[in-house]
Amino acid sequence: MQIKVVTNVLKANEDMAKANRELLKERGIKVINLISSPGAGKTTILERTVEKLKDEIPMAVIEGDLMTTKDAERIFNHGVPVVQINTRGGCHLDANMVNKALKELPLDNIKLLIIENVGNLVCPSSFDLGEDLKVVVLSVPEGDDKPLKYPTTFKKADLCILNKIDFLPVSNFNLESFYKDVASLNEEMQVFAMSAWKEEGMQEWFDYLRKLVQ
Amino acid sequence: MQIKVVTNVLKANEDMAKANRELLKERGIKVINLISSPGAGKTTILERTVEKLKDEIPMAVIEGDLMTTKDAERIFNHGVPVVQINTRGGCHLDANMVNKALKELPLDNIKLLIIENVGNLVCPSSFDLGEDLKVVVLSVPEGDDKPLKYPTTFKKADLCILNKIDFLPVSNFNLESFYKDVASLNEEMQVFAMSAWKEEGMQEWFDYLRKLVQ
Repeated sequence: MQIKVVTNVLKANEDMAKANRELLKERGIKVINLISSPGAGKTTILERTVEKLKDEIPMAVIEGDLMTTKDAERIFNHGVPVVQINTRGGCHLDANMVNKALKELPLDNIKLLIIENVGNLVCPSSFDLGEDLKVVVLSVPEGDDKPLKYPTTFKKADLCILNKIDFLPVSNFNLESFYKDVASLNEEMQVFAMSAWKEEGMQEWFDYLRKLVQ
Repeated sequence: MQIKVVTNVLKANEDMAKANRELLKERGIKVINLISSPGAGKTTILERTVEKLKDEIPMAVIEGDLMTTKDAERIFNHGVPVVQINTRGGCHLDANMVNKALKELPLDNIKLLIIENVGNLVCPSSFDLGEDLKVVVLSVPEGDDKPLKYPTTFKKADLCILNKIDFLPVSNFNLESFYKDVASLNEEMQVFAMSAWKEEGMQEWFDYLRKLVQ
């Protein structure tokens, strides 16, 4: 009984994700699903990205949180369309929530949509939203042991951002172990190391997005 | 249908949590359920706690992770009984997993059991394990905005540890906002500020545990 219901929930999500993907593909919009623990720096990465690229790439943002519109306000201040989804306790976004949010966005005028998922390194990776790419963010203070401890998210991601590298000198994060563990889970995965707060090392990421929407 | 099944899952967990609670209470064992995001420092707090108190308070640890025995190995090295639960993708521990782990521990010889939940600031707070206290750990690099964004966990917790305070000078964490937001969610909650890695500010926590098991 339990398995049957869970299957149905996942199947319903899959169908809606497919519909989202078709809708967005038709309009030539590339979509990123940004996944991390709480506080890894997703919103700061987004703020820097919007600041840098909004005049080159028409973009919009969907913010996912349990509660509050704090993150949407931060993005709104940079002058791009943004919708906040409040899951009210739910531990991840799903394709249906995103479908509803899409109706609030000017889809005819954007080329890039970034969806910031609920801060959670486990659940979001199981729910396709209709994105082109999953990007996982890990921050240095979380520790280099996290890829092996949360392998599903790292296996499913297309790209990894290692954020808060300005903390490297004051932490015991082992870069070598981290790169080795990421490669053991996902041989193809690129890692972009940056400090979004300090605006350091973000060029590769910006170039990646420029190429993505070409 | 879906709601019915979820209710049953939660009800089944509640029943098992009750059984765990009775079993542990009979033996006079106090139980803490330690909850946080990945990388907030739960295992380091545990290592320091075990080092400091194991000769005063007979204790045991249950480690929860999706995969790996990394955390259990860290605790094992300090010479206290430890069991690792691997949820293999599951985003939180449940009372049934804990019940199985209890069978592997020398319950007649301990007074304190600390259960380190899966790193996740959302899901663990909904699943009672049979504990006496929920302790939520937030680390400074995660940011002061987290209590309001993850309110359920902060509302349900009995105690909050603010860890990694050694990062305060190099972060934009606003202590005043943090304390205000925590109090707005949970007026009674005590906050212990510490850096477990640097072994700073842990005295209050140690005294709290000493008093708890009296």
